[in-house]
Amino acid sequence: MRLSQFHLATVKEIPADAEIASHKLMLRAGMIRRLASGLYTWSPLGLRVLRKVENVVREEMNRAGAIELLMPSVQPRELWEETGRWEKFGGQLLKIKDRKQQEFCYGPTHEEVITDFARNELKSYKQLPVNFYQIQTKFRDEIRPRFGVMRAREFLMKDAYSFHLTQESLAATYAVMYQAYTRIFTRLGLSFRAVQADTGAIGGNASHEFQVLADSGEDAIAFSDGSDYAANIEKAEALAPTNTRPTATAALQQVATPTQKTIEDVAAFLGVSPDRCVKTLLLRGRDGLVALCLRGDHQVNEVKAAKLDELGGESILASEEEILAAIGTRPGFIGPVGLPDSIPVIVDRDAAVLADFVCGGNADGTHCTGANWARDARISRIADIRNVVEGDRSPDGEGILHIARGIEVGHVFQLGTKYAEALDAVVLNDQGKTQVMTMGCYGIGVSRIVAAAIEQRHDDAGIVWPEAMAPWRVAVCVINPKHLPEVSEAAQALYEALNAHGIETVLDDRGLRPGGMFADMELIGIPHRVVISDRGLTAGTLEYRGRTETESRAITQEQLFDLLG
Amino acid sequence: MRLSQFHLATVKEIPADAEIASHKLMLRAGMIRRLASGLYTWSPLGLRVLRKVENVVREEMNRAGAIELLMPSVQPRELWEETGRWEKFGGQLLKIKDRKQQEFCYGPTHEEVITDFARNELKSYKQLPVNFYQIQTKFRDEIRPRFGVMRAREFLMKDAYSFHLTQESLAATYAVMYQAYTRIFTRLGLSFRAVQADTGAIGGNASHEFQVLADSGEDAIAFSDGSDYAANIEKAEALAPTNTRPTATAALQQVATPTQKTIEDVAAFLGVSPDRCVKTLLLRGRDGLVALCLRGDHQVNEVKAAKLDELGGESILASEEEILAAIGTRPGFIGPVGLPDSIPVIVDRDAAVLADFVCGGNADGTHCTGANWARDARISRIADIRNVVEGDRSPDGEGILHIARGIEVGHVFQLGTKYAEALDAVVLNDQGKTQVMTMGCYGIGVSRIVAAAIEQRHDDAGIVWPEAMAPWRVAVCVINPKHLPEVSEAAQALYEALNAHGIETVLDDRGLRPGGMFADMELIGIPHRVVISDRGLTAGTLEYRGRTETESRAITQEQLFDLLG
Repeated sequence: MRLSQFHLATVKEIPADAEIASHKLMLRAGMIRRLASGLYTWSPLGLRVLRKVENVVREEMNRAGAIELLMPSVQPRELWEETGRWEKFGGQLLKIKDRKQQEFCYGPTHEEVITDFARNELKSYKQLPVNFYQIQTKFRDEIRPRFGVMRAREFLMKDAYSFHLTQESLAATYAVMYQAYTRIFTRLGLSFRAVQADTGAIGGNASHEFQVLADSGEDAIAFSDGSDYAANIEKAEALAPTNTRPTATAALQQVATPTQKTIEDVAAFLGVSPDRCVKTLLLRGRDGLVALCLRGDHQVNEVKAAKLDELGGESILASEEEILAAIGTRPGFIGPVGLPDSIPVIVDRDAAVLADFVCGGNADGTHCTGANWARDARISRIADIRNVVEGDRSPDGEGILHIARGIEVGHVFQLGTKYAEALDAVVLNDQGKTQVMTMGCYGIGVSRIVAAAIEQRHDDAGIVWPEAMAPWRVAVCVINPKHLPEVSEAAQALYEALNAHGIETVLDDRGLRPGGMFADMELIGIPHRVVISDRGLTAGTLEYRGRTETESRAITQEQLFDLLG
Repeated sequence: MRLSQFHLATVKEIPADAEIASHKLMLRAGMIRRLASGLYTWSPLGLRVLRKVENVVREEMNRAGAIELLMPSVQPRELWEETGRWEKFGGQLLKIKDRKQQEFCYGPTHEEVITDFARNELKSYKQLPVNFYQIQTKFRDEIRPRFGVMRAREFLMKDAYSFHLTQESLAATYAVMYQAYTRIFTRLGLSFRAVQADTGAIGGNASHEFQVLADSGEDAIAFSDGSDYAANIEKAEALAPTNTRPTATAALQQVATPTQKTIEDVAAFLGVSPDRCVKTLLLRGRDGLVALCLRGDHQVNEVKAAKLDELGGESILASEEEILAAIGTRPGFIGPVGLPDSIPVIVDRDAAVLADFVCGGNADGTHCTGANWARDARISRIADIRNVVEGDRSPDGEGILHIARGIEVGHVFQLGTKYAEALDAVVLNDQGKTQVMTMGCYGIGVSRIVAAAIEQRHDDAGIVWPEAMAPWRVAVCVINPKHLPEVSEAAQALYEALNAHGIETVLDDRGLRPGGMFADMELIGIPHRVVISDRGLTAGTLEYRGRTETESRAITQEQLFDLLG
């Protein structure tokens, strides 16, 4: 591609609403343009990158034996009623009425449609296993779209769905998909981790997320330094402490903490460390309030909490009014000592081995010191309800956990029979009997990968694409093309030679000054830059610079080809 | 692809609502499956064909210098208000409210969005001309979706939009697009015609449609046998007759035609030929009723009629009540003799040269004979308001017109400044002054091409794909693979050799009986079939049959490769 024939539109100003690096850089590089909240046009430059990701995903899905099809984006309400998700999916489901007042949605995912397809197409176990996928525009009506294409409303997704007679067959395809995803993110040149994940609202048995590592990532992931254990922090188990609870030595005392409501303030005020304090949260449970007690330096894990029988699927903090009514005090002063019997007290494993601890006094402006379980406070049951932290033991017993930030770009699920049962998707098994199919589903956020890669790979000058995602691998820059025809010709010859060798190259023949041209090529992240100048031409060399190198160097054309492999 | 690893799902039953060959065959071949009215899933087989069309379109658009981007499918109401199309587009516009009650539509076309993109991106004449395109899913809420993907609601379209400083520049890009379209449909192996078209609701100056010729086509196209003139019948001019009006010889008489209301019945009843009759239509005009008079054997052209000043953009027949109120008679007995002066009488060129003609008597159950213009009936003006017919002189003066049926698969428009003006899309010209851009737009119905090709190319056994659109060019069929391992191995070797040579080949290793296997390969339209059998293996030959051949023949592998080029 000659840039003079392309629409490259880098810009200097960054809209104020761009909060993260990828959003800013995609706007500055002119990869995307905002049409409306959460809706972006992919400019020619942006689309080149998006298609590279799409093609790698497609190649690896095909290699893994998945079969591509294309379902409609608009889906009838009736199917979503069959699975109960028309209501349950919530506000993200963009509902549509057509001219005949029939109801539809703009598909945010396709479990219903593919299961409907499968129940009509698949009749016999002989057709199984089969794995269908599509690469398609989806819509989720995010309540707060942000971060550009990282959390857009309209986005490009690869979604695959596999159908099986048995759990063993599902597990085998799941493993194949796991490997395909590993290949995809490896080929794309991204630093990533596959982590165990909670199965959440989609349901099912086993699930892994593929997380691109980046400091700005919304997800926290825990991984072991002694094994391949890695999990979303939502899912990572905090092992029970190895020590047992010491004997109580201190007497229970109520102390005044007039303005100290946070653990930090209370601990500092009382001169104890936060890990000697117990914090107590009151949540709305299935049958009234439920108390969760954790060590002061730990954070509650909402996913784990929501799974407690007492909470029944949701983790919602009680309001100040509810707490006042039940305990007679405000949040900040609640503690397990003397809580009404009607409130179950669920104690985190690490909080349960504390003795002589500090906790809320259940009266405004007071805390207790020297509190002890059993003697002073009731434990309904002990459970793992906290987030793991750096330094925790790995749940598999091998090594120590570290915490990293990640951006979820892929997710594989063993769905089981949830959707097939709801939609009555059955086949005849080898006994001639009907049997509900077992399903897996496998998603990749194609457009999100583009943003995630930038979050992981950028510097002050702009984007640092991995080779496989770059809009072009090489930029040939011409200094002063109009006045030096022989330079222009040499540049064009090199550009053509590189492309002829299958090395995607862009020719910057726009006639910009070197500074502006180099800044653009760095901003848009081209991995290799070659400058053709008068001087170099005389010397028989090119001026080469890799995107992350700080100096240019003179190399021959032969060396350039060697370097580009 | 090995068919045992693919999802091929041909079916015997054809749903009753499939009216045309392509719809029936796409369902029978298992290319598409209906999800809801006008919504289809493209099965793996169908998608292979769709992608082939898409890729040819993309390659030729790129070759023609157009630059690909990708706009959102969901578009904000505000933009459509700027062009006035939020209301004017009518019921085909699928309107959506998001969770914040903001209004959007599912884009049926992208003039508004691309012009908004251009007004933000293009600042200087130096950036022009530029031609952006995308290949994207669109939605039109058809009042009566039918014919499968031929007139689906959700469909795949290539839409391109070019921006220019001058009409000359637009004309140049228009010519380039015309050539690109010609290459696309030629490469796809379709018999087609580029025809002059009416610019319709999208507006603009010049327009051509690309029509795939097929007897089932919804469009009639007129083309000359003596030149390259070709036009949609909506647009084709009917030249003025070369003869002048004869002198009146007969006396005007009112005759009883008690039950004869159609031209055919009246002509037969009175013993005259329909081309000696004048039929009169009453339409709703700008200022009351308007009469259109045509020769009895001619049909009114609604597009031409709508352009008459007296009608003002629409061609709507008056209701029986309106006619009764104005004339005192019912439709079927209306004629130009004695019409109220308030009704303009617009006479087609061919009707205007009739003398002594038959026409309605403006009283129930009567017609006039011996009627003559001027003497008996007023002519407000003479105009071309009829459809051309087979045998008419070509409007360019060269040859005679013939009529064929076509399916519109592409459309190129010179839009002019309509959208750029509405959205204030301006650039600075070389004088440093702002100037509204001139636009062209260029559409191709990618999914519709698949159906159109089948309409043009099928036989009793199924689809007859052109090579460029076939899901695979060659099918290698194995007879009895389980019991003859050497046959199976030879087939596999041939299959691999063909694919290695870039000849897309499918291996039918499903183990079906020959009859079922051959029927499937014919139904899905594979151009070349090769059978590997025990006997052929011994003789060193393959059994080859082209899709439209009636007999198989034994050829060597070398001959096969020669044949496939």
